Amino acid sequence: MTEPSDPLSPTRKPSREGIERAAKKIAAILPPTPLMPLKHGDSTIWCKAECLQPMGAFKIRGAWHRLSDMSEDERARGVVAFSSGNHAQGVAWAAKRLNMRATIVMPADAPQRKIDATRGYGADIITFDRRSDDRVAIAQAFAKETGAIVVPSFDDPWIIEGQGSTGLEALVQIIAQAGISPDKVVTCCGGGGLAAGIALALPGAKITVVEPDGWDDMGVSLRGKKIVPVGADAPATVCDALQTPLVSPLTFNILKDCRAQAVSVSDDEVFAAMRHAHERLRLVLEPGGAVALAAILAGKVEIDDRTLVILSGGNVDPALFSRALAA
Amino acid sequence: MTEPSDPLSPTRKPSREGIERAAKKIAAILPPTPLMPLKHGDSTIWCKAECLQPMGAFKIRGAWHRLSDMSEDERARGVVAFSSGNHAQGVAWAAKRLNMRATIVMPADAPQRKIDATRGYGADIITFDRRSDDRVAIAQAFAKETGAIVVPSFDDPWIIEGQGSTGLEALVQIIAQAGISPDKVVTCCGGGGLAAGIALALPGAKITVVEPDGWDDMGVSLRGKKIVPVGADAPATVCDALQTPLVSPLTFNILKDCRAQAVSVSDDEVFAAMRHAHERLRLVLEPGGAVALAAILAGKVEIDDRTLVILSGGNVDPALFSRALAA
Repeated sequence: MTEPSDPLSPTRKPSREGIERAAKKIAAILPPTPLMPLKHGDSTIWCKAECLQPMGAFKIRGAWHRLSDMSEDERARGVVAFSSGNHAQGVAWAAKRLNMRATIVMPADAPQRKIDATRGYGADIITFDRRSDDRVAIAQAFAKETGAIVVPSFDDPWIIEGQGSTGLEALVQIIAQAGISPDKVVTCCGGGGLAAGIALALPGAKITVVEPDGWDDMGVSLRGKKIVPVGADAPATVCDALQTPLVSPLTFNILKDCRAQAVSVSDDEVFAAMRHAHERLRLVLEPGGAVALAAILAGKVEIDDRTLVILSGGNVDPALFSRALAA
Repeated sequence: MTEPSDPLSPTRKPSREGIERAAKKIAAILPPTPLMPLKHGDSTIWCKAECLQPMGAFKIRGAWHRLSDMSEDERARGVVAFSSGNHAQGVAWAAKRLNMRATIVMPADAPQRKIDATRGYGADIITFDRRSDDRVAIAQAFAKETGAIVVPSFDDPWIIEGQGSTGLEALVQIIAQAGISPDKVVTCCGGGGLAAGIALALPGAKITVVEPDGWDDMGVSLRGKKIVPVGADAPATVCDALQTPLVSPLTFNILKDCRAQAVSVSDDEVFAAMRHAHERLRLVLEPGGAVALAAILAGKVEIDDRTLVILSGGNVDPALFSRALAA
């Protein structure tokens, strides 16, 4: 019995069994993303290139796990999601593959290529103003009006389990390639879905979450042992994918319980990591996808030869990428 | 009996059995590079991301096959190679792993990062002037003086077999991912080692080699059925990796016998392919590594859902990469 007793219950908690089930479903349609060794100082760290997923980020995992678990009736109702871009593309990609309607609520200032790509997968898009509108309210109003099912970007057991499959997949690869298992994981954190999922997937590993400077609400919350939103005076950040104003009890409690630590990085540190990945790994990383590597290059996280670092996304406009290369 | 009768004979011809042996040796130390589907027009083509090899290009394959087949005595003598950069890094990488000395003869105008990376693997470097010096003569003189073994960049059965393992590896992946085998292969061509190796590895597939405009000596040779060098008036090209002045009977005859076709691409077409790979695949391609995709995007090669395209390398200076993104 490896499946949760009621995997479709709306009140269930994310579980290691759910992650195993998600990993199996994802492996059936997507080849594993590469796990690439990278020498840094005296260590060789292991980079999981989730930027190479078909829509360019790990978000495809949670979206596929959630949508493919829906009943026929649920599928007919369609889905609605709110996202700065990568969850949007993940949901749109999964919906297209399952022949479902998807509507995405996206900030008007999301990178143009994320908006274009989401529309390219056939999704309808509703834009909102990141500073004045409530994206959750917009999505919920749309759901009430049309019957569509809301697919949250992190506060959901399926989403957390789907993202957590990244950890299981990497575990298998590290064992195959180096005969070892990871003892440290460094990962980005917006709402915390990926970090919480990996924490459940790799219970023996020390988790470090990385956020942009000023958007480090998960770090503040973990240190204070209670959820605190991002401050109203949060500075601008190049990490469009990580501008999540408030984490959820679900992700927070998982990370608190496993004693995750948190650090934050500056735009310049992010740009340095994007350059490094370009030169050493030949990968295109978006700012939010480079924060974990940035924290390591900046010396903010202790590493060893069993350190797994998630390169979580690669959807970045060419002009911003060139700015990072020139920085 | 899958091995050639005398795999170490210096006069042997490259063979399919040799490619199988190379593929096995390479699979023992390097995970397969990803095979990524890419929608183009009504077709989905299959991109083999050799730019994700540890040193950034397929050249690691031939170098590993050649050096790892050397006897203890040969290993003690060390190796010398001439290369604009990727074969250099491949040989240096393999030599380091086998604890051998490597000396590389490189053009003084090779991309700085290729020179730095080659030195980073512990190789000694001798630079030459691409316009006035004879790199083969320099390498041979060094070999005569020191006893080092010359490792050619394409005119060698081991090198051709090693590069050919790209084709076998992709074959296994296409079958696993889509249940089909490739009927067309589009690949870059400098000296023709990769193209000839893939032609032997996938005998049923139609091979198209792609060269930079004005450096299309393989194309001219194939059409005229005899080897012709690059003209003295060849224009400048951004494809530093494909500036090979003369192909060899070994590679030429394999490609002639399988009726390979050849096309050439402009710098602008190459830049467009680099942008496309950045946006759609999140891969960093160097100009020479993007020519095969460039030919497809420019509509110069017929494609279908069984078309394999080799993205052969990703070692490019950031300034040139930004130029491609802005073009």
